[in-house]
Amino acid sequence: MKVAILGMGTVGSGVMEVIRMNRQEIERQIGASFSISHVLVRDKYKERGVELRGVTITDAIDEIHAADIDVVVEVMGGMASTRDMLLEFLEKGVHVISANKDMLAEHIDELAEAANRNGAMLMYEASVAGGIPIINGISQGLNANRIQEVMGILNGTTNYILTKMTGEGWDYEKALDAAKEKGYAEADPTNDVAGFDAQRKIVLLSRLAYNRKVDIGKVRAQGIDSVELKDIEAGRSAGLTMKLIGRSTFHDDRLSIEVAPVFLPDDHQLSTVSNEKNAVYISGNAVGETMFYGPGAGGRETASAVVSDLISCLRRMECVERNIVPAHEAVITEDASPKRFYVRFTVDEISAGEQLSQHGIDYELIERGEAAVIITSAIKPEKLRALVENNDSIYVTYKVEGD
Amino acid sequence: MKVAILGMGTVGSGVMEVIRMNRQEIERQIGASFSISHVLVRDKYKERGVELRGVTITDAIDEIHAADIDVVVEVMGGMASTRDMLLEFLEKGVHVISANKDMLAEHIDELAEAANRNGAMLMYEASVAGGIPIINGISQGLNANRIQEVMGILNGTTNYILTKMTGEGWDYEKALDAAKEKGYAEADPTNDVAGFDAQRKIVLLSRLAYNRKVDIGKVRAQGIDSVELKDIEAGRSAGLTMKLIGRSTFHDDRLSIEVAPVFLPDDHQLSTVSNEKNAVYISGNAVGETMFYGPGAGGRETASAVVSDLISCLRRMECVERNIVPAHEAVITEDASPKRFYVRFTVDEISAGEQLSQHGIDYELIERGEAAVIITSAIKPEKLRALVENNDSIYVTYKVEGD
Repeated sequence: MKVAILGMGTVGSGVMEVIRMNRQEIERQIGASFSISHVLVRDKYKERGVELRGVTITDAIDEIHAADIDVVVEVMGGMASTRDMLLEFLEKGVHVISANKDMLAEHIDELAEAANRNGAMLMYEASVAGGIPIINGISQGLNANRIQEVMGILNGTTNYILTKMTGEGWDYEKALDAAKEKGYAEADPTNDVAGFDAQRKIVLLSRLAYNRKVDIGKVRAQGIDSVELKDIEAGRSAGLTMKLIGRSTFHDDRLSIEVAPVFLPDDHQLSTVSNEKNAVYISGNAVGETMFYGPGAGGRETASAVVSDLISCLRRMECVERNIVPAHEAVITEDASPKRFYVRFTVDEISAGEQLSQHGIDYELIERGEAAVIITSAIKPEKLRALVENNDSIYVTYKVEGD
Repeated sequence: MKVAILGMGTVGSGVMEVIRMNRQEIERQIGASFSISHVLVRDKYKERGVELRGVTITDAIDEIHAADIDVVVEVMGGMASTRDMLLEFLEKGVHVISANKDMLAEHIDELAEAANRNGAMLMYEASVAGGIPIINGISQGLNANRIQEVMGILNGTTNYILTKMTGEGWDYEKALDAAKEKGYAEADPTNDVAGFDAQRKIVLLSRLAYNRKVDIGKVRAQGIDSVELKDIEAGRSAGLTMKLIGRSTFHDDRLSIEVAPVFLPDDHQLSTVSNEKNAVYISGNAVGETMFYGPGAGGRETASAVVSDLISCLRRMECVERNIVPAHEAVITEDASPKRFYVRFTVDEISAGEQLSQHGIDYELIERGEAAVIITSAIKPEKLRALVENNDSIYVTYKVEGD
């Protein structure tokens, strides 16, 4: 099976890298081998810092048409001309995987129709929320539900800016500059900060969730470019966190949909989604509330979604629907990585401290008194065991995970 | 296509209910109709409070074998005898969907082998984390990754108990009693509180994530039955929250896996998962960290996962791989449900208060002074608009979502 990649920027390079890292696992799942045979670029002499041996690099789309490709992966961006290019592949029955939310938010219905007419697949997991498998979640995992609400943090750039304004007390300009420095915001950040990027994503999610065409021209989008620090701080004093939220609801065959900065209660799951992360809440009439959380951008992270589509696509071509039966028994060992441990002693902090320093364990004292409680610095489990063994003055220990 | 359901308890009833609620959407996705033709129960005369018209209710498995069933949905529980029953169906090429984690954690490999020998599907989304589509997430959405870590709150009963101990200061016995009263804990709560239930689930997830057989006999499980309130409180004072965590890591072909109460930093995403909810963290070498959150139990919630498997199974039988093209354009309207609003005035709290009471809007004052800030009680957007229109003394408003 032959695959062509259109575009070799951040996501395209990520796709090459993920395939290189995980080819064995990927081909096991497909039950066959495949090759990236062609890559379409604008400048074929440009150095790209990605391994492309054995791949034909071309700036001529005709060369790809001539090569009898099975699947085209579009990660180059662009609007009308990209749509035309993909339509041409679909009309020939070539499967298309696209990460191009801008184009898809406008043209997905005609592309999907062309795909159906020609027995092709059109897949677009990477177009929404980067590496989070939310398209798959809606179309497969939650497909027993009537979806009633979709609500998400769908843009990493603005979430980074709001996180810094909220957590560090930076004003909008300073936070935007930091986002540019981190590579999260582009030189012209309009698409992100004006809410257009989130608008495209909530359109794509809503179309799928409610099975309705959604005219993006009718979807209100308000960005964060006029959000002032003083409002974020006033909200905080009332237990509210500001987030740029794309949200839609569907009741009685009526869709409500918009993108806007809104306040969420601090204990809301979306309030704790920080920096460039994304998260999507889905509410369905059987499952109730679910949430999917993960990286909203990044080359390798987005490539996770692109390659997942590629695996599904190639599996379907091969009609692979075998159940997974692991060939090998797992070899189970202890997790020996250093961790912090919570330790409650039956003795006071002086005796406890003596024992700990005898074992060379640094710690933080949590409770003094007759039953001292401490938390160790990160140590190997064997070091804790040496302390605990045959030690009557330790009552209980717990691991601290997730540092 | 004909489906039989084995068992008609909480989950079985949930399956009937979800199919009744959403049949139109379900059949649209399958592209064909299907019937629940048989239900296997122990006592066929028992009143079940679920609509079973047109369904043959039987206590004789032979009747189901004789009926030329395509898919069997097993939601009855049981160990060896259930395994034998399902093997017999699989050997005949009948597809099997099971929610039975106890049995699967022991027997899934032989069942999957039997399925593969006979061209049958074995699906088990509902066996782990209730309605959260985590099996699908691992096997489809994240299948471009080598998974490196799985870490989750996999048992709703113990999470409810720990939430109450942490948040309300209840001791273990009081929290357990409350869990029983709520229906989260059984009369004999051993399976949950001793960690066996979470152990089965981390075994099933790890097998799938790392493609290794996992011998459950080798997996350490520590429950919460000896957790004392004073440790939870000491942890809290150090910014740590106790959770019962099933966790596994896979590095250099070595699996580390266990269930234990551990402390997590308060700002960890799993720390905010409360009451009977479940959540699973997955870390992969392409995507980095992702999390799936949702209901871990409940009839209708778990049925969401069972019916999702049923849809996938029937779609594959029908070879339905059409791309979704919505037939209708969405009718977009404003979300008119009452919400709270944040309002910053350019006037002080006295003038602001006068305006608000003129419009009959209750509110909470957040900031006094020359630019008062208030949060309204839940009001319809039109009521806010009436306040804001042609009003120079309002500087900005934001919606409060997620209450």
